[in-house]
Amino acid sequence: MLESGATIGPVEVAYETYGTLNADKSNAIYVCHALTGDAHAAGHHGDPERRGWWDTMIGPGKPVDTDRFFVVCSNLLGGCQGTTGPGSEDPATGRAYGLGFPLFTVRDLVSVHRGLLAHFGIGHLAGAIGGSLGGMQVLQWVIDYPDDISAAVVVCASSRLSAQNIAFSAVAREAIMRDPDFQNGDYYGTGRSPDTGLTIARMMAHITYLSEASMREKFGRRLQHGEEPRFAFDVDFQVESYLQHQGEAFLKRFDANTYLYMTRVMDYFDAFADPGAVGAMLEQSGTRFLVVSFDSDWRFDTEHSREIVRHLQSWRVPVTFREVESPWGHDSFLLAVPEYLRTVEAFLGRAASDIGV
Amino acid sequence: MLESGATIGPVEVAYETYGTLNADKSNAIYVCHALTGDAHAAGHHGDPERRGWWDTMIGPGKPVDTDRFFVVCSNLLGGCQGTTGPGSEDPATGRAYGLGFPLFTVRDLVSVHRGLLAHFGIGHLAGAIGGSLGGMQVLQWVIDYPDDISAAVVVCASSRLSAQNIAFSAVAREAIMRDPDFQNGDYYGTGRSPDTGLTIARMMAHITYLSEASMREKFGRRLQHGEEPRFAFDVDFQVESYLQHQGEAFLKRFDANTYLYMTRVMDYFDAFADPGAVGAMLEQSGTRFLVVSFDSDWRFDTEHSREIVRHLQSWRVPVTFREVESPWGHDSFLLAVPEYLRTVEAFLGRAASDIGV
Repeated sequence: MLESGATIGPVEVAYETYGTLNADKSNAIYVCHALTGDAHAAGHHGDPERRGWWDTMIGPGKPVDTDRFFVVCSNLLGGCQGTTGPGSEDPATGRAYGLGFPLFTVRDLVSVHRGLLAHFGIGHLAGAIGGSLGGMQVLQWVIDYPDDISAAVVVCASSRLSAQNIAFSAVAREAIMRDPDFQNGDYYGTGRSPDTGLTIARMMAHITYLSEASMREKFGRRLQHGEEPRFAFDVDFQVESYLQHQGEAFLKRFDANTYLYMTRVMDYFDAFADPGAVGAMLEQSGTRFLVVSFDSDWRFDTEHSREIVRHLQSWRVPVTFREVESPWGHDSFLLAVPEYLRTVEAFLGRAASDIGV
Repeated sequence: MLESGATIGPVEVAYETYGTLNADKSNAIYVCHALTGDAHAAGHHGDPERRGWWDTMIGPGKPVDTDRFFVVCSNLLGGCQGTTGPGSEDPATGRAYGLGFPLFTVRDLVSVHRGLLAHFGIGHLAGAIGGSLGGMQVLQWVIDYPDDISAAVVVCASSRLSAQNIAFSAVAREAIMRDPDFQNGDYYGTGRSPDTGLTIARMMAHITYLSEASMREKFGRRLQHGEEPRFAFDVDFQVESYLQHQGEAFLKRFDANTYLYMTRVMDYFDAFADPGAVGAMLEQSGTRFLVVSFDSDWRFDTEHSREIVRHLQSWRVPVTFREVESPWGHDSFLLAVPEYLRTVEAFLGRAASDIGV
C-alpha cells in the first residue's frame, strides 16, 4: 500500500549487507542510494575493479565502519537493479508494469526499507545515511518514524527541489518520453528501448553533477585528438568524449522508466510542506542530524541544506551542519574528500558510542 | 571563401535597416544577432505583437537611436531566416546543403556583414553591438578590421567557451543528431525533421538562459492546474509548461542544422588564441569598447567578460566595463534593464558625438 493509496503486488528487494549484526541488533546503519545507485554500495564481488558506488565511505576502518556497524543497502522501490520496479512483471497481467507501475513517494521508499529491516528483526538503527535522493530518504524517515534512527546523515540533499532542479529533470524526462522507441513505456521485450533519450538525459545530468571549475580543470578546452581542432560535429573536445561515454555506459545498467520514476519522486518531494505535522513528529525525535553540503555543488547548493537545518533547528532537533570545501560539485558526495569523510566518521563514531555500540 | 578554405556559392543575406543613412555614410551601427536571432531586430511589420527581438534596445530615442543612427541587422551566414544556410539549395547539387554546408567561423560571419556594408557603400561604422554570439562577432570584427568601428558594444559574450559551455552545446547537438528523423542532416523535403531533438535542445538551453533566482521567482514550485499535485509524468509544474512551450514554439521558426552550425561556431571561437597577432592588430585600433555582463548570468558569467577586458586593456584599447545587476540571467541582454540600457545609450551617444554624428 503506497502513500497514493495504490497497492503493488509482492515487492522484491535486492540488498547487500556489510559487517556483522551484533547480538542486540543495535549496530545497524542503513545506506540510502541516490537517483541511479543500487544495492552494491561497498566492497567488490571478486572483481576489485567493480567496487561499490560508496566504497570511499563504507568499509573496515572507513567512516561507515564495517568493523563496528552492520551496514544494509538496498536497491530502491521502482529500481532496475533487483528491486521491483517498472521493468518487473506485474502479476495481474503477466507483463512488465511499464508506466502502469504506480507513482510512489520518498515516504514509500522508506516503508520498503523498513520492511527489509523487519526481515532482519532490526527495530532501531544506529544510523542512516544518504546523499542527494539518499539524503531525502533519511530526512523523510526521521519525520515519519522519529524513534527509528539515532544518527541521521543527510548529504547534499534538499527538502524540496527548486524550479531549476525540476526543469533539468523535466527536460531529461521529455528526452526519454519523446523518444520514438519509448512506446509509452511498454518497450520491454520489443527489441527497442529509448536509448537515445536516456543517453541525452544522462549526459545533461552529468553537467549538473560537476562544478564549472572542475569541468574546467578536468577538460578545459582540450581536444580529444591532437592539437588542432578538426572543425567537425563529431567529438572533438575532451568534454564531449566524456559526456558521450557517460551517456552510453549508463544504458548498460539503467532502465529509462526507472529514470522517470526516480526523478519524479524527487520533483514531488516536499519534506516540510506541512510544518505543523512535521514539527509535532520531530519534536519527539531522539535523532541527531549531520547535514553536509559542498560549496561547489550547484545541483543542490548549500542553500538547500541550510533550509533543512533551519527547519530542524526550529523544532530543537540537534543538528551539526558542515559546508565542506570541495571543487567537485554535487559529485563530491561520492568522492574521497578528506574533511567530509572525517566529519561523517566523527559524527557516526560519537553517536554510536553514546548508544553503547 | 571561408576561413577554412572552403568556398560557398552565392550567399544571399536577409537584412533589415532602421533609421536613415546620412550623407557621408558615417552614422551606421551594425547589430549582430545571437544563436537563434534573425534580421528582425526592432519595430514591427504591421503586427505590433511581433516586435523585433531587440526592440528594447533599438528605436527612436532608444539606446541605439534610430533618429540618429542608420541601423543594420542581418541574419547570420548559416542561418535559417533568409540568409544562405544549410537549408538553402546548393547550386552544385540542386538540393539543400544539409551537413554539406561548410563549417564556418565567427570570422566568416563578420566577412559576410562587411559584404553587406559594401553593398550600402559604408566603409566605416559608428558602432557595432551584439549580445552573446553577437558580442563575439563584434569582438572578432575589431580584431580583424581594427579601423572599421568607432564604438564596439560587447554584451554578455565570451572570448572562448568554457568546458561547461561546450558541454551544454554538445548535449544539445547530440539530441538533434541522434534523433532518428535527423537523417544525417538530409531531412529537407522528407516530411520528417528532428523536431524531438531540437525541442530538447531548446528546452535545455532555456534553463541556462535564466538564473536560478529568476526561475524561482517566475515559477517556483507552482502547479499548472489547481493546488494539488497530480502525481503524473505529464506537465504538472508551471516550469515544465514553460519549457515545453518554449521548445515547441521554437520548431516553427528554427532549423535544426542551423542550430548545429551556430553552436559549433561558438565552441571553436577563441578570440585571443594567438595573442601576439591579435595584439598587433588591436594596438593600432581606433575602436573604443563597452563590455557589459550581468551578475546573475551563469551561461557566460562576468568572468568571461573580465577576460575580454583584461586582454583588451593589455593592448591599451580603451574599454569601459560594467557588470550590471539584474536577476534575469543571460536573458537580461534582451530585457529592459534600465542601468544596462542607460549605459549603452551613454556610451554610443558619446562615441557618436566624438566622431561628429
